[in-house]
Amino acid sequence: MKKLINDPADVVPETLKGFAAAFSDIVTVHLDPDYVVRADAPKQGKVGLVSGGGSGHEPLHAGFVGLGMLDAAVPGAVFTSPTPDPILEATKAVDGGAGVLHIVKNYTGDVLNFETAAELADMEGITVKAVVVNDDVAVEDSTWTAGRRGVAGTVLVEKIVGAAAERGDDLDAVVAVAEKVIGQVRSMGVALTACTVPHAGKPSFDLGEDEIEMGVGIHGEPGRSRQPLVSANEITDQLVDAILHDMNLSGGQVLLFVNGMGGTPESELFIVYGHARERLEAAGLEVTRSLVGNYITSLEMQGCSVTVLKLDDELTELWDAPVNTAALRRGI
Amino acid sequence: MKKLINDPADVVPETLKGFAAAFSDIVTVHLDPDYVVRADAPKQGKVGLVSGGGSGHEPLHAGFVGLGMLDAAVPGAVFTSPTPDPILEATKAVDGGAGVLHIVKNYTGDVLNFETAAELADMEGITVKAVVVNDDVAVEDSTWTAGRRGVAGTVLVEKIVGAAAERGDDLDAVVAVAEKVIGQVRSMGVALTACTVPHAGKPSFDLGEDEIEMGVGIHGEPGRSRQPLVSANEITDQLVDAILHDMNLSGGQVLLFVNGMGGTPESELFIVYGHARERLEAAGLEVTRSLVGNYITSLEMQGCSVTVLKLDDELTELWDAPVNTAALRRGI
Repeated sequence: MKKLINDPADVVPETLKGFAAAFSDIVTVHLDPDYVVRADAPKQGKVGLVSGGGSGHEPLHAGFVGLGMLDAAVPGAVFTSPTPDPILEATKAVDGGAGVLHIVKNYTGDVLNFETAAELADMEGITVKAVVVNDDVAVEDSTWTAGRRGVAGTVLVEKIVGAAAERGDDLDAVVAVAEKVIGQVRSMGVALTACTVPHAGKPSFDLGEDEIEMGVGIHGEPGRSRQPLVSANEITDQLVDAILHDMNLSGGQVLLFVNGMGGTPESELFIVYGHARERLEAAGLEVTRSLVGNYITSLEMQGCSVTVLKLDDELTELWDAPVNTAALRRGI
Repeated sequence: MKKLINDPADVVPETLKGFAAAFSDIVTVHLDPDYVVRADAPKQGKVGLVSGGGSGHEPLHAGFVGLGMLDAAVPGAVFTSPTPDPILEATKAVDGGAGVLHIVKNYTGDVLNFETAAELADMEGITVKAVVVNDDVAVEDSTWTAGRRGVAGTVLVEKIVGAAAERGDDLDAVVAVAEKVIGQVRSMGVALTACTVPHAGKPSFDLGEDEIEMGVGIHGEPGRSRQPLVSANEITDQLVDAILHDMNLSGGQVLLFVNGMGGTPESELFIVYGHARERLEAAGLEVTRSLVGNYITSLEMQGCSVTVLKLDDELTELWDAPVNTAALRRGI
């Protein structure tokens, strides 16, 4: 294992300490239990947005805390759900009297622990609702999931729902926007290499020198098939075909998001993006918004995912709204 | 070689095509010869800023084209200097009558080809000046360099000088700001793994399972020493020690920039940032500005560099000025 770390047990707190020092204008980081909140939290009268999950997917979620996106993020240990306690603390810290929405990726541990935290918050008089993101079309059920996994679509949910909360939507309206985005976003990923969880010390799965994992999960969970390495265009075709088959779109505007898994050069993401865009356009879709880069990673895994979000005027306006976080800044 | 590419010969044009499609609101991409210009170029009366060099370091330089930073970027083949022709075309495309500044990283091929392009532009009546960035304290002279190499400090030069040009400084004043930044910025990097140039098909150097290259160049050039892998704190100490020894600072404000080489998880960059910051503060320096992330990469290399820039009020103000590029957006 070759990593720029000290003791594997200290990876998450040391990452958070560095992050806190670099972005003290945007966030406040609490340790033990670990959670990250907007520096100006709580915002009175605004719905608070909390997300979280295992660490190792940086910049998700802490990198998306700030104006126009999340109010708090709760990082667990690497690839491990956070416990209810820090989720509860984060929920209390961002409660401005208008209720709190939990944005949860669909993994069994995350869903259970966010539910428990919501019940505890309710006992303290905070209204909490939750939405579950399950955008991965690769497989039904998986290593840590009943139903579909929540992957890169989560970034889009957090941005758009964040804008809705920022403009003053009430809790029910924010939930409605979240459900709408979740209903219209689909993703699939591919891995060229595995990644190594620091405390495990060895790769989480084995891939041959010329093999790829098509439909991989963000923790290296198995996808649809182990295949020989082919060209970027052929790989992109498989990802786009699976998404289009699932979405059944006939025209309209979409957002195309090509996400790097952590270890893939940006140039390769643009090659995938270019071909995916051509494919969507050939299918009669208009790509009016884009995102390309490392936004939800799997440590140093090489690979990428493609995400398509069906847009309408409201979602486009919310996507374009100002955002000021460590990992996404625009319009500020 | 495991990469998300098609024909290795098409990596640069396919990357540029994808980039152009994703960021058509910010840039215009010209192919054959390849160069990237601001969508609103030329800006009449504004000094034009052109940088460039071999590809493989994305987002540098094309990702820094836009308001408040570069007017044009000229990408060569992977790890290969661009020829004078596209540099000349880019220079002409951004000439708004106030002259053009070439920002050149100190590699022999880049320096020669930018010089030739400047002479050709001069023959067409365009005033061109050049500055050479040489911030890498690791070694004097190197595989492709006489003197010190230009590395991550280039990002800071492009941002700050871009702000000076944007506020309306004339060519001499812009050169003066560039020379000031170059005089006050120092960097050093470390590699945990090598990278593979697509058309080469095999890693550019060999590193053992427990070895690192301390002081590595951004093309994998040898640094100061091949060493056993040690902790992030020990590696960071060596990088910071080398920089502080060279800068001889006694107090004052600095910008701390921890740059990922392309294949390193963001969490590791924050671990390095946190310790580097502690070291600078212990040396009596105040870290008032920060940058952490993949800004000048070496394909999928694992590793990072640390850069320290001595600040004053003018440089801080220019650093804080609005910027709207693909890879760096702030204040817009």
